[in-house]
Amino acid sequence: IKAGSRTELVEMLKRWDPIDVMQLLVRLRLKQARKLFNWLPANPSIKVIAELRPEYRSLLMEEATQEQFRDILAGLDPEDAADILNGFPEDIAEALAHRLPDVEEVTSRQSYADDSAGRIMARKFVALPMTCSVDEAVAQIRADASRIRKVYTLYVIDEDGRLTGTVELGKLLLAPGTSTLGAIMNRDFLAVSSDTDQEEVLRLAAKRDIRAVPVIDSHGRLIGRISPKQLNRIATEEAAEDMLLMSGVSSEAKANDAILRIVRGRLPWLLTGLIGSSIAAMVVGSFEDQLATAAILAAFIPVTMSMAGNAGLQASTVAVQGIATGNIWSGEITHRLLKEFLAALMNGAIAGSILALLTLLASTLVPIEAPLHLALATSLSLLSVTTLAAMVGATVPLALNKLGIDPAMATGVFITSSNDILGVLVFFLMATTFYLS
Amino acid sequence: IKAGSRTELVEMLKRWDPIDVMQLLVRLRLKQARKLFNWLPANPSIKVIAELRPEYRSLLMEEATQEQFRDILAGLDPEDAADILNGFPEDIAEALAHRLPDVEEVTSRQSYADDSAGRIMARKFVALPMTCSVDEAVAQIRADASRIRKVYTLYVIDEDGRLTGTVELGKLLLAPGTSTLGAIMNRDFLAVSSDTDQEEVLRLAAKRDIRAVPVIDSHGRLIGRISPKQLNRIATEEAAEDMLLMSGVSSEAKANDAILRIVRGRLPWLLTGLIGSSIAAMVVGSFEDQLATAAILAAFIPVTMSMAGNAGLQASTVAVQGIATGNIWSGEITHRLLKEFLAALMNGAIAGSILALLTLLASTLVPIEAPLHLALATSLSLLSVTTLAAMVGATVPLALNKLGIDPAMATGVFITSSNDILGVLVFFLMATTFYLS
Repeated sequence: IKAGSRTELVEMLKRWDPIDVMQLLVRLRLKQARKLFNWLPANPSIKVIAELRPEYRSLLMEEATQEQFRDILAGLDPEDAADILNGFPEDIAEALAHRLPDVEEVTSRQSYADDSAGRIMARKFVALPMTCSVDEAVAQIRADASRIRKVYTLYVIDEDGRLTGTVELGKLLLAPGTSTLGAIMNRDFLAVSSDTDQEEVLRLAAKRDIRAVPVIDSHGRLIGRISPKQLNRIATEEAAEDMLLMSGVSSEAKANDAILRIVRGRLPWLLTGLIGSSIAAMVVGSFEDQLATAAILAAFIPVTMSMAGNAGLQASTVAVQGIATGNIWSGEITHRLLKEFLAALMNGAIAGSILALLTLLASTLVPIEAPLHLALATSLSLLSVTTLAAMVGATVPLALNKLGIDPAMATGVFITSSNDILGVLVFFLMATTFYLS
Repeated sequence: IKAGSRTELVEMLKRWDPIDVMQLLVRLRLKQARKLFNWLPANPSIKVIAELRPEYRSLLMEEATQEQFRDILAGLDPEDAADILNGFPEDIAEALAHRLPDVEEVTSRQSYADDSAGRIMARKFVALPMTCSVDEAVAQIRADASRIRKVYTLYVIDEDGRLTGTVELGKLLLAPGTSTLGAIMNRDFLAVSSDTDQEEVLRLAAKRDIRAVPVIDSHGRLIGRISPKQLNRIATEEAAEDMLLMSGVSSEAKANDAILRIVRGRLPWLLTGLIGSSIAAMVVGSFEDQLATAAILAAFIPVTMSMAGNAGLQASTVAVQGIATGNIWSGEITHRLLKEFLAALMNGAIAGSILALLTLLASTLVPIEAPLHLALATSLSLLSVTTLAAMVGATVPLALNKLGIDPAMATGVFITSSNDILGVLVFFLMATTFYLS
């Protein structure tokens, strides 16, 4: 790539599909990608930028000149342009926005709250009066064809601009040309207000199996439309957030965050975990005398803790996932918990037996006092810890959900810590009872 | 609910939205839900069933009579009917399928592999010859209107039934009535074969931003269509699978699995974890003499392990997520790892300082020998463990991905175990060097 002459390369890339150019760019080092990108003439580069993930757009364009910038932004969808501007400091964003043809479109989005329907909606939609006939509607769409690429639903408004109904394109095709939109429109439609949270928009759209959602203001006037592309984006974001929260990372964490953002996103949970494990340390410390008598007991701390952690994480992930997908039959929770309990008991019994065997095996290699008693104590404690941790993991998310707390977030923090503490406590109690007594 | 008379209740539910009835049902105990469901006349119950998640359908219908069954299945979309039949033992499913009007539709799906495009495709689509004019196409769609509810794309086929192009409904509306479909169709379309994996279908559809994907056989003939609803379902499933795999649960785990399925889905990872932590136990055991001298050291095992676990989980989740969403700029991996390293160093330094303070504080309450040395040893070990665990967590998923192994699965199993072992090893080495020497 580096050896080839610039003109040849650009000629070649021009003939490529924008998606392929984009995939080439993200495989290069950032500096080379920027250089290559700056070589591209405006037309293909706009298409490439449109294919790129939003985070990369600003990275790639950091070194572009203001001129290039204006051309590229002007060529993008206003939603995409606004996303890019969002990634810049406010003064630069404003200076750039003023040079754009769709100034109003781009800047007015900034006035809506983050993650609200207003922030993600597009202002491009087809709205027609109720009195419009089917033939007139078709003519209108033909006239607007260049401006609107993909239309599947027409919005019908009254004389004050209030949304009164929707007409699917298929229905328009089937209806006689002289009937009015008011007569054929669907009056039982879904619309959200501009301050509705994007999660709520997604939930409503999914419930009704609707692919584009109209946005109305406080007077019921149609002001925008959330596209299927945006809905997909929200869905992906929401799934990712749950996963990140459960692992104790801030839900906005991205793979290419700056250092301070990484620290900010992870430190709170690390410190909460530190407090939790310090309590576990105090529990261990209170058994110092027993440890001094039988230092071998310390070797079982990692086993107990890792088992408690794993069993708890498994049960809580299934529960969090079940809540998120609505897959939990609320009427059958007791039954569900009973099943979790029995399954954990079985898992714990199997793991406990294996640990007992390993302990007896180890006693033939290194001198261990009363190996049978030790095997009994450790396997019984593994059984109890596994069962206990699974029950905590299965119950806490359901309880938190009932209290209106996001189960994904709380699960990561509290279940791990409480299982750490419970784990060592149960282990030392069992060890004291069955081994040291 | 129980007190009200049956007739009144049924009258009331008939007037409800099927979605609301569905939501009432899942809040009841299973027995009551079944009873109530059996009271409902066929028509509303079909709509309710269509709204229910597939897993619940078979649960709810277990006690329905064969007669009810046939009526309900016949009223559902063939895809939904096939899903329900899939949930039954083969002989019953066959007996039921033969009584359905769409026998062929329902049973032929069973012949495709699990998770293949053939299994999830619908056979309802609008296919017209290339020579068909726009006006004829509109007439054809009108005639089929009752059979097909939502059409957005027409498929254009040649005389052998091979797919040659697609026409968006919007385009049909805009084109002159006399032009042929062959002239206006889009020839650069996406189609998948019936044995394409559903994940691959999703990836292709997402890349092209396409909402319904046509399915062709080995001769290029159009045989089905994957609906937007199915694509959404795949997307949700895929996101859930990653999360479950990372937590060490089989990717097919559901919140309402039977006991043996729960055990089977979780035991392998628990046992792998047991082996990993047994190695950690051996490491601790090899420091038995040091522990006998200073039993207090055992108290720091939980702190070290929990910190290693958390830091590793955080880093690996961000990496797995970044890989899954394509959010990692491949050209910048060294830079990314450097950032992870510096961030982990900062987090480790902060957590280490706090642990040192806690240790010194504890030494004022209980007698601890050489508290300053202990504080130094434990905080340094926390710093190293955090950094090391984060680097393992950030690197392993990337490496596995390069090797073609699903990073989500391997991450859960290997990172936790290796961090457990590394954690205790580093801790005891630090303790021996700075505290016991």
